[in-house]
Amino acid sequence: MSQGQKTAEEAGSAQAAADTPAEPKPSRPAPPTPTYEGDFVIDEHFMLECGRTLSGLTLHYAVYGRLNAARDNAVLVCHALSGSALVHQWWPEVFAPGAVLSLDHDFVICINLLGSCYGSTGPLSVNPETGSLYGPEFPLISIADNVRAQSRLLDSLGVRRLRLVMGGSMGGMQALEWTALFPDRVERAVVIGVAPLGAMGIALNHLQRQAILRDPEWVEGNYLPQKPPTRGLSLARQIAMLSYKSAPLFNERFARNPNRNGEDPWGLDDCGGGLIGGRFDIAGYLDEQGRRFVDRFDANSYLAILRTMDTWDPLRGGRSAHEIFGQIKARLTFIGISSDTLFPPDSVREFAETIRAAGVHAEYREMVSDHGHDAFLAEQTELLRLLQ
Amino acid sequence: MSQGQKTAEEAGSAQAAADTPAEPKPSRPAPPTPTYEGDFVIDEHFMLECGRTLSGLTLHYAVYGRLNAARDNAVLVCHALSGSALVHQWWPEVFAPGAVLSLDHDFVICINLLGSCYGSTGPLSVNPETGSLYGPEFPLISIADNVRAQSRLLDSLGVRRLRLVMGGSMGGMQALEWTALFPDRVERAVVIGVAPLGAMGIALNHLQRQAILRDPEWVEGNYLPQKPPTRGLSLARQIAMLSYKSAPLFNERFARNPNRNGEDPWGLDDCGGGLIGGRFDIAGYLDEQGRRFVDRFDANSYLAILRTMDTWDPLRGGRSAHEIFGQIKARLTFIGISSDTLFPPDSVREFAETIRAAGVHAEYREMVSDHGHDAFLAEQTELLRLLQ
Repeated sequence: MSQGQKTAEEAGSAQAAADTPAEPKPSRPAPPTPTYEGDFVIDEHFMLECGRTLSGLTLHYAVYGRLNAARDNAVLVCHALSGSALVHQWWPEVFAPGAVLSLDHDFVICINLLGSCYGSTGPLSVNPETGSLYGPEFPLISIADNVRAQSRLLDSLGVRRLRLVMGGSMGGMQALEWTALFPDRVERAVVIGVAPLGAMGIALNHLQRQAILRDPEWVEGNYLPQKPPTRGLSLARQIAMLSYKSAPLFNERFARNPNRNGEDPWGLDDCGGGLIGGRFDIAGYLDEQGRRFVDRFDANSYLAILRTMDTWDPLRGGRSAHEIFGQIKARLTFIGISSDTLFPPDSVREFAETIRAAGVHAEYREMVSDHGHDAFLAEQTELLRLLQ
Repeated sequence: MSQGQKTAEEAGSAQAAADTPAEPKPSRPAPPTPTYEGDFVIDEHFMLECGRTLSGLTLHYAVYGRLNAARDNAVLVCHALSGSALVHQWWPEVFAPGAVLSLDHDFVICINLLGSCYGSTGPLSVNPETGSLYGPEFPLISIADNVRAQSRLLDSLGVRRLRLVMGGSMGGMQALEWTALFPDRVERAVVIGVAPLGAMGIALNHLQRQAILRDPEWVEGNYLPQKPPTRGLSLARQIAMLSYKSAPLFNERFARNPNRNGEDPWGLDDCGGGLIGGRFDIAGYLDEQGRRFVDRFDANSYLAILRTMDTWDPLRGGRSAHEIFGQIKARLTFIGISSDTLFPPDSVREFAETIRAAGVHAEYREMVSDHGHDAFLAEQTELLRLLQ
């Protein structure tokens, strides 16, 4: 299972490569490898917001570069839904010369989300209290749970203060939560393409969840690791892809072309009937994205993190924005993506304005891109321009 | 199985009604009932564009009002994907006083699409050549196939010329095809919210198709009528709903509210785990839409009509717009819907411009609505204003 592939990377290969001559890329240094990659374990019971506890909570993490003597060069990069601690794999451009981060100066930390299948405690982990996999009994993890556990890891690394915490999508949820939960520990936060999920986003997650639950191989979450619900997870990924990209990008890339392998959308089925027919190119692309995803991600982990995403809503519970955000000391930069349908730019801007109205330094910038939500991965040059 | 329910109607009941006090509705006459509803059969083999033939092709249809002596008052209303011939059920407002149609003057015809489960020949029909249901061997039906068969029915009714043909979505595909295939038979056409499906629309149909095909009860299309693939069809309908509505409408109606039946999205599962949890209101709404749909529609019919929709592309095959559309004599009105993500207004406008550039009288008007693609059903007052 290769960790932390990004959808942008996937979009750029197989289907897209077949008809696009490879563009000569400017030569640049290879992205760094981690100075250290390993596990941090919290031995005592860790109390979760939902009221349950996790025993032996493990965070898998990677660090790049070195913490300086003044301990003021630490940067936390937070990953999105299906990412991993290996930020150099899914966001290599942040390390490019002249980009946001430089390992000459920065000590970069990235920590795998709880619930994930990339090393932190998740549904595939053994519950030390039962000796069995958590499976469907894995508890609801909040973004705040992640951030509080991450703060313990940072303590252990000797990192008291972050010069910067940044992330896109669910990574942005963590970045903002860091500034609210630990106001004295963060100098600056960059929150990209995120706000509390709107009704359309909740709807998309609901359908992805249904796709998995309706796969008979899911077996109420008790599937055997060697017999996972790949058809359901693949369909879930394909549903998600619609919200990661944009209609103009799909039109530009796939138009109404037949699948590039030669299938005929106007042809008859093998049985001579006409209910199915050959695929269009966009359908071949989506199937391929689904196929790749099931090779690298676990269905129960996906369900766990979808729920972390759905339930993140700092303003929930009737407290005022001032009560929730008023203590933030960090400078916040929110970035909306013009073509993002999952977290529409207006929702990001309004969220930033709510926080600014609570007395926080919160600016909003907009990234103009046809790439949809994935633009923060797919168009990193434009992103970096906005950040500089 | 109740015929021709519209999604707009569905959206307005159950979920929405529970928290909205019933608004007093202006009293208006009940919509009309058909003057006649029945079947038209083409006895000889009917040759389809795909190269196969249908024997005993049946069109189920309804007529309202009476053809006048001059035979110049006929209007054809064409239905969308899951509609029926009973236009008074799914588009009652077109008959309202002062609206587009009046049965004092008009003779209105509506014909069920081939492939449907509402009376015209479809996968649930018996193939007279084998004595068995067509099932997965039902052939690919094009929009042009429908229109050519419909023209035979109009011949039988004594209708030579249509004063108006109109429809939204797939209904608009038929309306336009009428003007191109039978230029001498149509005076005016209103084509609402439609253009050849773009890559995002093809993607949405692909995922709906996958949802059905992955349901083990689909059995390669050979399911028993009493054991249909309801879980797959329900999920397909829910995926479709995302593209029929709009994000602003969902936010206004459902926001981030928990499901109105009292479920708790932050609660634990029945088993004490946290992978699933209670639903949000939008999820309860979508589930309800799926549940209702499986009571009224057939999965193989759905697959058949999805493919009719996917494959409609008059400009396919390299002929020029002038060759394809240049002979149209009708006055065309295209209507795009501002919030439509399935057939974005820009694509409708560009399609209208392509046809106008071929020398056709084709105007474009835009309906401003937050209702998404369904606006032609949900906001009929605004639609009628545009048409008058």
